[in-house]
Amino acid sequence: MPGNKKQNAGDHKTGLDLGQYLQQVCRLVDRGLDRLLPRATAKPPTIHRAMRYSLYAGGKRMRPALCLAAAEACGGARQDALHAACAVECIHTYSLIHDDLPAMDNDDFRRGKPTNHKVFGEGIAILAGDALLTAAFAILAQAPATARYSTRELVQELAQASGSQKLIAGQVADLEAEGKSIPLAQLKYIHECKTSALLCCAVRLGGMSANCTPAQLQALTDFGYNVGLAFQIIDDILDVTQTSEQLGKTAGKDVAARKATYPAMVGLPKSQAIARQLTDRAFAALRQFKGQAAALEAMATYLLKRDK
Amino acid sequence: MPGNKKQNAGDHKTGLDLGQYLQQVCRLVDRGLDRLLPRATAKPPTIHRAMRYSLYAGGKRMRPALCLAAAEACGGARQDALHAACAVECIHTYSLIHDDLPAMDNDDFRRGKPTNHKVFGEGIAILAGDALLTAAFAILAQAPATARYSTRELVQELAQASGSQKLIAGQVADLEAEGKSIPLAQLKYIHECKTSALLCCAVRLGGMSANCTPAQLQALTDFGYNVGLAFQIIDDILDVTQTSEQLGKTAGKDVAARKATYPAMVGLPKSQAIARQLTDRAFAALRQFKGQAAALEAMATYLLKRDK
Repeated sequence: MPGNKKQNAGDHKTGLDLGQYLQQVCRLVDRGLDRLLPRATAKPPTIHRAMRYSLYAGGKRMRPALCLAAAEACGGARQDALHAACAVECIHTYSLIHDDLPAMDNDDFRRGKPTNHKVFGEGIAILAGDALLTAAFAILAQAPATARYSTRELVQELAQASGSQKLIAGQVADLEAEGKSIPLAQLKYIHECKTSALLCCAVRLGGMSANCTPAQLQALTDFGYNVGLAFQIIDDILDVTQTSEQLGKTAGKDVAARKATYPAMVGLPKSQAIARQLTDRAFAALRQFKGQAAALEAMATYLLKRDK
Repeated sequence: MPGNKKQNAGDHKTGLDLGQYLQQVCRLVDRGLDRLLPRATAKPPTIHRAMRYSLYAGGKRMRPALCLAAAEACGGARQDALHAACAVECIHTYSLIHDDLPAMDNDDFRRGKPTNHKVFGEGIAILAGDALLTAAFAILAQAPATARYSTRELVQELAQASGSQKLIAGQVADLEAEGKSIPLAQLKYIHECKTSALLCCAVRLGGMSANCTPAQLQALTDFGYNVGLAFQIIDDILDVTQTSEQLGKTAGKDVAARKATYPAMVGLPKSQAIARQLTDRAFAALRQFKGQAAALEAMATYLLKRDK
């Protein structure tokens, strides 16, 4: 498994330059979102400016990248999964806007910039979230269907992953856990809902957009679930090991809010070991693709080694 | 056109008993929502209780009724449009929960009961709205497709009507108009977005669920647009002519908030005349259905004559 430095310079085993790959994906997704959403000047401009403010606030486009990479791993072209990738990014962005609200996590900064409600006010921020959530389905409904997967299945996939028993369930359980002592199983449930569900959905939608086989879909599910859980545990770890400056958002918030986290519950070394173990399982799932999943592999490595 | 009393006793011209019809629709939609949404006890129960609290808070099910009636006017069965009707009711309910929030209209009561955030807190109320919005698409994606209309078209229809250029645009423009003097054209735009768009979508989805012809779809569009605008103007009128007790919600709020309304802008008699004119246009659109649109006709009459 190559380290961060080697990756940035190009992964010699597969010939993939992850930095370049992510740049290409960002450009593709930025343009896709620009084309698929109403213009910033569309009436009423306030809401469209607010939607775009958070969409273009420096997100790493990790979910869209995983979505497009999954399509490629299944033999498809990136373009096949662009609608799905943009839809997932709209859901992710809406969930951040709503999570940052004073009634939720009450965050003033996100990725080093003022949060949506600090710029546009709470009312517009709630509506911008609603609008991005709605736009996700408008965009996904435009995705080309494939022989194995219909629009119906794509829409249900996204609705389930972002619904009251997954993404939203995670935020509810998170709110309810604040300041309380919860068992590790409940923390795992929160992480699965808040992070794994949508990451898993991103790679599944990518595969479905490329007309993947049922076996490929299962492999992507295993991959997405494990990477998602690892990703969130690393988020917990970074909150205690990094400064606000390094993260581009308030560090140490979890500790300050006495939030349940893996490091707080099982300690740092064990948390890191669990994250590595989950990533190993994710890599094992990629064997299904017989070397065609270079981008997914590089991204899983990157997500485990990231420092912000 | 029969008066309210005659309608309740049965419309002799068509044999339709509107009271009975609405009761049947309510039962059908109540059961449909119960079946199509996660159980109240599903994990985490808080969010599912909050969703159901507002869904079953005594709404008149006017949009679902219009949706099912539109399907029948096009020769379909009520059952054909049940998914669409339930999806529209989820959207309507989510928009009420979010509109009632302190950051928006700050309403403590709705239909005589405490609003969602008064019962569950702001965080859960925001998430319950998000969950209902998401559930609307999960439900609609399960609707049976027809020869003329695919799942894709149904989803796009709902996403457009409830998106940033219609339903959400209305709430944004409404927020921005508060305490300001706006021209009548802007007030009409707000009403079109806030009310007409979703009512129009309800009847269009009903027609589409019954595989309506393009001519029928156009007639339903004209009908829905005009009834929706009339409905909202009557809401404005009732706010100044009725007491809180009669309405089951705070009366006189528009005046207190110095909100732009038709009565405030053009006076009561002219507002009533405009509402009547819009309803006449709605009736004219129904000629297309050659007497098969008894329920739509009865409902339009009812909406114009209602006193709460």
